[in-house]
Amino acid sequence: MILTVTLNTALDLTYRVPALTPHASHRVTQVIERPGGKGLNVARVLAALGYETVVTGFAGGATGEVLRGHLAGLPLTDALVTSAGPTRRTVAVVDTSTGDTTQLNEPGPALTSAEWSAFTGHYAGLLADGADAVALCGSLPPGIHVGAYAELIRLARAAGVPVLLDTSGEPLRRGIAARPDLVKPNADELAQLTGSREPHRATRDARRRGAHAVVSSLGPEGMLAATPDGVWQAAPPAAMKGNPTGAGDSAVAGLLSGLVDGLPWPQRLARAVALSAATVLSPVAGEFDRSAYEGLLPRVTVTERAEAA
Amino acid sequence: MILTVTLNTALDLTYRVPALTPHASHRVTQVIERPGGKGLNVARVLAALGYETVVTGFAGGATGEVLRGHLAGLPLTDALVTSAGPTRRTVAVVDTSTGDTTQLNEPGPALTSAEWSAFTGHYAGLLADGADAVALCGSLPPGIHVGAYAELIRLARAAGVPVLLDTSGEPLRRGIAARPDLVKPNADELAQLTGSREPHRATRDARRRGAHAVVSSLGPEGMLAATPDGVWQAAPPAAMKGNPTGAGDSAVAGLLSGLVDGLPWPQRLARAVALSAATVLSPVAGEFDRSAYEGLLPRVTVTERAEAA
Repeated sequence: MILTVTLNTALDLTYRVPALTPHASHRVTQVIERPGGKGLNVARVLAALGYETVVTGFAGGATGEVLRGHLAGLPLTDALVTSAGPTRRTVAVVDTSTGDTTQLNEPGPALTSAEWSAFTGHYAGLLADGADAVALCGSLPPGIHVGAYAELIRLARAAGVPVLLDTSGEPLRRGIAARPDLVKPNADELAQLTGSREPHRATRDARRRGAHAVVSSLGPEGMLAATPDGVWQAAPPAAMKGNPTGAGDSAVAGLLSGLVDGLPWPQRLARAVALSAATVLSPVAGEFDRSAYEGLLPRVTVTERAEAA
Repeated sequence: MILTVTLNTALDLTYRVPALTPHASHRVTQVIERPGGKGLNVARVLAALGYETVVTGFAGGATGEVLRGHLAGLPLTDALVTSAGPTRRTVAVVDTSTGDTTQLNEPGPALTSAEWSAFTGHYAGLLADGADAVALCGSLPPGIHVGAYAELIRLARAAGVPVLLDTSGEPLRRGIAARPDLVKPNADELAQLTGSREPHRATRDARRRGAHAVVSSLGPEGMLAATPDGVWQAAPPAAMKGNPTGAGDSAVAGLLSGLVDGLPWPQRLARAVALSAATVLSPVAGEFDRSAYEGLLPRVTVTERAEAA
């Protein structure tokens, strides 16, 4: 099974309004409520692809119960730990006229060190319980120490489970130093980590900081991978128009499933790029369009580059 | 006891952000969650003033349960009816730097005609169960017919219970025709109803449409009352600076409690204006500052006007 960890799960609300005007009052014309947090998004894609998937992290309060109610309808296993504090909400306000989105993210519950200790034990148990790979995804909730991902990476490595890290800022910096198998930064995360906006240089720099492989998102232009086996660039057949929400999470699902399937890097990257593009094309934010995925997969171009990783 | 009706209750969320920027992502620095909907706000003020208060209307779903959990901590009686659809949320996004607020209101659950019938029976029972006055407050949820308030006003009049209506648009227009004892429009509601922005003319016009008395809010300048006993204007000692959220609901609580106490109009108006001003001054949106209220009450000026009501 594939395990995904979401320490700061969320109840994601999408509000449609004709146009958001600061300091005015708006009637929301449509409300969509979904389980959220990057690791849950990754798990939803993995489950839709048919992989046995387990989600863990924290959920609490009334919002946590609603979240778990939504998860109960999906083909995945809920191994979330109950926190005393309530699960946060995120609100995406979409302007109906243009599709532009304004995002409001609650901070999440303040977790105690006792809750964190209980979680690490639970997580170690899940790793030992037949995990083929684990993804650590998203921001840290308040109260969790900044080296939390580094701690979870060391536990995965000790258990012999390949570990992917997808986060940003200081948790990413600390996490990389704990030598994860793979990190998947986007351009902003990479620039914040390395100080460089030149993707080739920044990706190689990120790898030198400790990650075995780095797959950087180049946005609509695809992905760049620096790995022990070489450097590849993967691109979709054309830039996709649509909603990029969740495209990065779908890419993580592609990379993780490719790893578990033992695919060589070019095929893993093709899968990640096709899933990501099929998510941008989907009319529902964060879902991928399966027929678009199947159509795109053979049309992704993967080019090996001569440079040193 | 005093009964307040909130057909479209809400879980009110207040999000603090440094400044709301359309199409950007925001970390919410503070989340406040409160029971909402105008009738619940009125009830909270009445309960704080020591009146025996009962709230009814609809609540449903996970948000409805959270709402009722909040009500359980207040000195009032929860006589809400459970709806199949979930209670809506409202989100007030407050810019920390300026205090400016952007409001996002979910529409609320679509209620069925069976739910409406069950409610009217329940409401009639509460009227018969010793209600001294009833306030009908706020917008109608989807699925409720536009004459709903007119129907509730006729039931109150049949039961001999004085009834106050505080709503807007077509529900106000239809409600007034059913001859409520009191309506409390603000300037916009009055203009929408009568076509006039001249408060004296518009207030008299509203009264001719069927309400026994009309108390119009003049914003920071106080209130104007056209009643069977005469016409009065009431003003606070100075324009108050602060957050006007809930000021109108506090005014309703003042008018309703003054009616139940059998106060003459000038004293009812003084109470309404002082409570409203003390709500603007409160640091917590929708709460009133009790010492400010007590200090303001004797300083409200009420002037009788010679014109015909």
